Amino acid sequence: MIIGVLGPTGSYSEKAAEKWIAKNGGSKVVYLQYYDDILDTVSAVLDKTVDLGIIPVENSLEGSVGITLDMLNENDLKIVGEMVVTIKHCLLSKGKLSDIKIILSHPQALAQCRKFLKKRFENAEIRTTGSTSHAAKLANEFEEMAAIASRESAQMYGLKVLIQDIQDKKENHTRFIVIKAGSTVKTPSEPEPSLSENVSYKTSIIVYLKKDRPGALYELLGKFAKRGINLTRIESRPSKRALGDYIFYIDFEGHINDEVIRNALDNITSSVGMLKILGSYPQCAKEGTTTR
Amino acid sequence: MIIGVLGPTGSYSEKAAEKWIAKNGGSKVVYLQYYDDILDTVSAVLDKTVDLGIIPVENSLEGSVGITLDMLNENDLKIVGEMVVTIKHCLLSKGKLSDIKIILSHPQALAQCRKFLKKRFENAEIRTTGSTSHAAKLANEFEEMAAIASRESAQMYGLKVLIQDIQDKKENHTRFIVIKAGSTVKTPSEPEPSLSENVSYKTSIIVYLKKDRPGALYELLGKFAKRGINLTRIESRPSKRALGDYIFYIDFEGHINDEVIRNALDNITSSVGMLKILGSYPQCAKEGTTTR
Repeated sequence: MIIGVLGPTGSYSEKAAEKWIAKNGGSKVVYLQYYDDILDTVSAVLDKTVDLGIIPVENSLEGSVGITLDMLNENDLKIVGEMVVTIKHCLLSKGKLSDIKIILSHPQALAQCRKFLKKRFENAEIRTTGSTSHAAKLANEFEEMAAIASRESAQMYGLKVLIQDIQDKKENHTRFIVIKAGSTVKTPSEPEPSLSENVSYKTSIIVYLKKDRPGALYELLGKFAKRGINLTRIESRPSKRALGDYIFYIDFEGHINDEVIRNALDNITSSVGMLKILGSYPQCAKEGTTTR
Repeated sequence: MIIGVLGPTGSYSEKAAEKWIAKNGGSKVVYLQYYDDILDTVSAVLDKTVDLGIIPVENSLEGSVGITLDMLNENDLKIVGEMVVTIKHCLLSKGKLSDIKIILSHPQALAQCRKFLKKRFENAEIRTTGSTSHAAKLANEFEEMAAIASRESAQMYGLKVLIQDIQDKKENHTRFIVIKAGSTVKTPSEPEPSLSENVSYKTSIIVYLKKDRPGALYELLGKFAKRGINLTRIESRPSKRALGDYIFYIDFEGHINDEVIRNALDNITSSVGMLKILGSYPQCAKEGTTTR
C-alpha cells in the first residue's frame, strides 16, 4: 500500500499518516510517497499512483483548508478516514534570531502564527511553500531565512529551534482526511472490515441547495434534527458561480449503512440541487482533546 | 471624514472606498488613509485615527477572509455598509514573461489564481504582501518579479500588464464591509439618515451556540425561517477553543429596527451562548451581478 502525503519528510501530514498506519494495524507494508502540495497529492490519488492520500481539511485556529474542500467537490474522491494531529509550530533557522529577514511556510501555518509574525517580524519578507517541511528544507540555504514548521523538521534539515509554540493560541489541532479515488456512488461503502463494531462513524456530504429559496438550509437541517442525527460541522464555501451563492459541507455522526442516515439522505435528495456523499468513516477520538 | 483602506494606492479596497464615497453623496470632503494590512486598518478604526475602515470580507472564488471575521469577533466594531467590487487580477511586471522567477501578492489573490500559478509558474517563488497594490509597488524593483494586482496598479507603479484576467474563473467579486468603532450594543443603530426609505437593509450577527446540543443550529435557523427572514449567508469559523467548536457569522435581510427582526433577535438571545449584533446597513445591489 502506498499513501501520498505532503512532503518532504517532516510534514504534519506525514505525522497524520503515521498515526493512521499505527491505528490500522501498522504491520502491513506501507510506503509513503511525498508530494509538493495538496493539488499534487490529490492528483496522485485520482490517477491511482497512490492507494490513499492524507491531506489537511480543517485547523482549530484558521478553519477550513479551502483547496481541500474544492478538491472534494470537483473530483471523484471518497473520504475513508480522519486523523487529528496536534500542531506546535516552531521558528527554525540555521542563523540567529537577529539574522532573520525571510520567513517561509505554508499559508495555513503562516495564518496560524499571524499575531506572532505581526508582532515579532512585521518587516520580514514572507514566502509561501507547499508544505511546512518544504519551508524547513529551503531555510537551510541561508542564515537569514527561517521556517515555520514542526520541531522534528529542525533535526531533519539541520536547523535550530529559535522559538517554539509560536501559533497564536497554544491549543492547535489540524484534522486530516484520508482520501481514495472513487466515484461518490449512492450505494454506501461497507464499513472498513478491520474495524470493530464499537467504532463510531461519521459521514461527510456536500449539498447545493436549490437557488435562493428562503428557509432552504433550515429545512435541510431539519431532516437531520428530526431524526436525532448530530451534525459535527457545517461549512459554507463559494459555489464559484456568483458571490453569495454557496455549497455546504456537512459532517454528521452515523454511517450511511445506518437505517436512519440512509432514510435522511433519501429524503434530502429530492429537495436539494446537488447531493454528493463523500463517505462514512471511523470518527477520530473526541476532537480537540486528541493528543500526540 | 477619513476612511482607512489597504494601501498603497491601487488596492481593490481603495476601489471599494471610491464606490462607497460616490454612493454616499460624494460631495463631502473625504480623505483616504492607507494601511499596510487588514490588522493595521482595523487598529486605526478602533483607535479612531480614521472614521471608517473598508476591508474585504468575502470573495466569490476563495470565500471568507478569515482575519476580517476574526477581527469582527474580537473587537468592538460595527458594520455600517457593504460594497461589491469586481476583481480582475493581472500579472504585472517590469520584465518579460520569461524573466519571472518571483510572484508577489496578497494571500487571497494568490488563492484566487491558484490554478493559473500551478499551471504557468509551478517553480516560481511566491511571496505574500499585505495588499495587491503593495505587491505591485515592490515588483517595480526587479525585472524577475511579477505582482498579481489590478490593471490600474500597472500604471501607478510603472509595470506592464503581462497577462490579464488570471483569476481561476472569469467572474470574480469581492464583498467589502465598511466598519466603524463602537460597541455592539443591543439598542439598534438608526438607519443612515442620508438614505432613502426604499433601500433594503441587511443585518450581520455573530452567534456562539450552547455547546454540543444536537439540533441547536437547526433551532436557531428556525427563529429566522418561521418569521420569513431570508438568510443571505451563514459562515462557520473556529471558536479557537477546540477543534470542532465553531462560531457562526450570519447575514440576513432586514433592519434591526424592523419589528420582525427585533423579535427574532430577542428570541434568540436566551437560547444561545453569545449573540453579537454587528449592525444593519444598506444591502449592495444584487450580489455577483454588480459591475464596475
